[in-house]
Amino acid sequence: MAKDFPTRAESYAQWYNDLVIKADLAENSAVRGSMVIKPYGYAIWEKMQAALDKMFKDTGHVNAYFPLFIPKSFFSKEASHVEGFAKECAVVTHYRLKNSPDGKGVVVDEDAKLEEELIVRPTSETIIWDTYKRWVQSYRDLPLLINQWANVVRWEMRTRLFLRTSEFLWQEGHTAHATKKEAVAETETILDVYSDFAEKWMALPVLKGTKSPNERFAGAVETYCIEALMQDGKALQAGTSHFLGQNFAKAFDVKFLSKENKLEYVWATSWGVSTRLIGALIMSHSDDNGLVLPPMLAPIQVVIIPIYRKGEQLEEISEVALKVKKGLEAKGISVKFDDRDTYKPGWKFSEYEFKGVPVRLAIGPRDLENGTIEVARRDTLEKEILQIADIENKIENLLIQIQDNLYKKALAFREDNTYSVDTWDEFKDVIENKGGFVLAHWDGTSETEEKIKEETKATIRTIPLNAKNEDGKCVYSGKSSNRRVVFAKAY
Amino acid sequence: MAKDFPTRAESYAQWYNDLVIKADLAENSAVRGSMVIKPYGYAIWEKMQAALDKMFKDTGHVNAYFPLFIPKSFFSKEASHVEGFAKECAVVTHYRLKNSPDGKGVVVDEDAKLEEELIVRPTSETIIWDTYKRWVQSYRDLPLLINQWANVVRWEMRTRLFLRTSEFLWQEGHTAHATKKEAVAETETILDVYSDFAEKWMALPVLKGTKSPNERFAGAVETYCIEALMQDGKALQAGTSHFLGQNFAKAFDVKFLSKENKLEYVWATSWGVSTRLIGALIMSHSDDNGLVLPPMLAPIQVVIIPIYRKGEQLEEISEVALKVKKGLEAKGISVKFDDRDTYKPGWKFSEYEFKGVPVRLAIGPRDLENGTIEVARRDTLEKEILQIADIENKIENLLIQIQDNLYKKALAFREDNTYSVDTWDEFKDVIENKGGFVLAHWDGTSETEEKIKEETKATIRTIPLNAKNEDGKCVYSGKSSNRRVVFAKAY
Repeated sequence: MAKDFPTRAESYAQWYNDLVIKADLAENSAVRGSMVIKPYGYAIWEKMQAALDKMFKDTGHVNAYFPLFIPKSFFSKEASHVEGFAKECAVVTHYRLKNSPDGKGVVVDEDAKLEEELIVRPTSETIIWDTYKRWVQSYRDLPLLINQWANVVRWEMRTRLFLRTSEFLWQEGHTAHATKKEAVAETETILDVYSDFAEKWMALPVLKGTKSPNERFAGAVETYCIEALMQDGKALQAGTSHFLGQNFAKAFDVKFLSKENKLEYVWATSWGVSTRLIGALIMSHSDDNGLVLPPMLAPIQVVIIPIYRKGEQLEEISEVALKVKKGLEAKGISVKFDDRDTYKPGWKFSEYEFKGVPVRLAIGPRDLENGTIEVARRDTLEKEILQIADIENKIENLLIQIQDNLYKKALAFREDNTYSVDTWDEFKDVIENKGGFVLAHWDGTSETEEKIKEETKATIRTIPLNAKNEDGKCVYSGKSSNRRVVFAKAY
Repeated sequence: MAKDFPTRAESYAQWYNDLVIKADLAENSAVRGSMVIKPYGYAIWEKMQAALDKMFKDTGHVNAYFPLFIPKSFFSKEASHVEGFAKECAVVTHYRLKNSPDGKGVVVDEDAKLEEELIVRPTSETIIWDTYKRWVQSYRDLPLLINQWANVVRWEMRTRLFLRTSEFLWQEGHTAHATKKEAVAETETILDVYSDFAEKWMALPVLKGTKSPNERFAGAVETYCIEALMQDGKALQAGTSHFLGQNFAKAFDVKFLSKENKLEYVWATSWGVSTRLIGALIMSHSDDNGLVLPPMLAPIQVVIIPIYRKGEQLEEISEVALKVKKGLEAKGISVKFDDRDTYKPGWKFSEYEFKGVPVRLAIGPRDLENGTIEVARRDTLEKEILQIADIENKIENLLIQIQDNLYKKALAFREDNTYSVDTWDEFKDVIENKGGFVLAHWDGTSETEEKIKEETKATIRTIPLNAKNEDGKCVYSGKSSNRRVVFAKAY
């Protein structure tokens, strides 16, 4: 199976696309730009959701659900928001079909035209702030710490499975606060939740920082982000947390009576991660043999494959295998025992390798004799024969080790592909020939960022929170700068 | 708070609507027919989702996600499906807005008209069977046992929070099988899952049966359903499971090579329950004092309220309260300790009563002295003073008792409001003056069912699976019949 797809070196883009489809994660649908998330891919999303949802709840948030449709006029209320979002979107204009006069199929019923068109939400700030207006009167009603799990639609011309699709699944948090300080703190709390999730669950090291004005969310005062580096040297924005100031409160007239009895506008944040994370997960760890999934997000963490010739061997092996399975499951490890007789062990080996199952156990007749089990790990492809005694603890530790190894490997990759450059020639050379994160001085202007983008396709991915003060000269304009920012080509 | 809303006797419809809004479950949004599900209401949905999702997985199903948009032409492929669904729906015709020439807001960009309109899914059989066509070649690919949690849109003219909204949340299962027998068995398995869920989790007794052809799902060969009786004597369809025969396989040309090497059409089922269940939950158990929630679905199962005058009393009470809270939480019980000093105990008592929290604990200075705690149950409004020793077990048992009591009460209500009638006059009298389920003979024709509906607004809610064979005469036409069916006015 792994044979008929290209290596990363041959074509990274094709490798990615083929991997997503052949590993049964997702596929394109009959609707341009909309994907079908297949059960194996959706199981990864469910694991991500469960982990994030718990983190949101542990930090005081609750879930709710707001409408899919947003009246067109809502988008015009926040000036920069409409520029960023209302343009490429799905517009509902009618609410009825009728039988076609020629008897062939159905046509839009022109009598059922909406007075005001409805936009399929590309993001929900507007409909939510229209709602918060009714919920907030006094400081006692604040903060509102609300998240929703939802689908959104942004009409994309060039789509790629998980990375950029017209419809995608995400969570969007929308909070309302009495003070600026509290709202900024919330924005930063969520940035920490996102980076913890990326690092601990996805085994994905990320840079934390803010965006330059050019890359800021439409309607935000400040956009914080986590940025990761993919194996092809391109950056991927994995999550954003926006401090919205009072922009949406002003646009939707949301005021509250403060403790001091003054009428003030509410402060806002919004933040989101999406099914794009699955794309990031695939691109960070997988290899030319297929998917590599970190144990904490793998739908199947351990697969057990029996090696046998005759039916009665299978019976004996199954007895041992099911005991191991039970022991592992008691530790909360998800295990599949694949005893299908329609496929041979070799086929199964490559199937689960291709699908990125972290640990493969094999039990054959000789193992029965010797009280052993063959343990293969997906990340290093190493195999060893272990005594079956205490195998549950050994596997539990191995899964932790694999998770840790994937993180370290990704971190080492990022470090190896992060360059500090001081001249424009060097900058262009690295961006063009090496890729990766480029730390360079920047004069702080949008004009310079745009020119750099025009000439090299690289953009400022983030202004790192932990950047040291360091005097220098802008790599492009030569003007003075007091810290380096991170440039890269990006997904 | 409970004061300014009508009793059930005064106006059941207004009681329901006010209750939903004032108990912070949901409210209407700026988009006609679309509701906002508020955090307290959404928390109930999350509990429902978690329970159902586990039941689906325990019966071998997996989750996936299919596109929100469906090409218009797909609806024409299954003849009766288009009649039932493609008419009242949201139609996406354009994919871009542009700045209005007059500078005021945005308008639809007529240059961005879709070649083929997209329908916002009212249900997903068509897009899913278009996908299954790619997934199924051989009997080895079957069965497909897939569910999705999603939003759907059906353009409704008269909407009611949770019960009938243009957009609603649901799960829709779509399965594909090699044989008719297996597909029918699946339809029945799911009917059992639904009725188990209704009875065990919602404390809602339901009738299991099939629908008459008039009430069948558009495209189904047979529709199974669970039907519940609300406190106003109207029936509510709480879930449906459809045996679709080979209708969708034929419409989308989905064939498989059987074990016998013959090319055959695939057999299908689909099944769903929605946020409508929250409406059923509210209407079954709540009373004139507000919500009554069964413990198994209550977001807060136990609330603890301190009764105190001075700050130092609160400290001592808190110590005891937090210990009780911890003990209850260790048993998996969700507990809120409301020590806000901005509200008085009396206000809190009515607040949690109104919101249907199953058990309220109160601790005052006298309780500290006596080692007691006041326990109040929402279902019967009874209070008692208990020794605090072993309180965790007592509360755990009490929650089980409350769950059981709500079920028994609802069952007794249904039994008291189920009538067996044999004459047309009697039929009309019961439907008009009493409501409830009416067991009557029916001649089996659509014409009779339609005439009965015209004259009384009652429809056949279900043909019960466990109906006894019994010779009789149709209550309307006088023609012969061999079993009674269940009539009622319905939501």
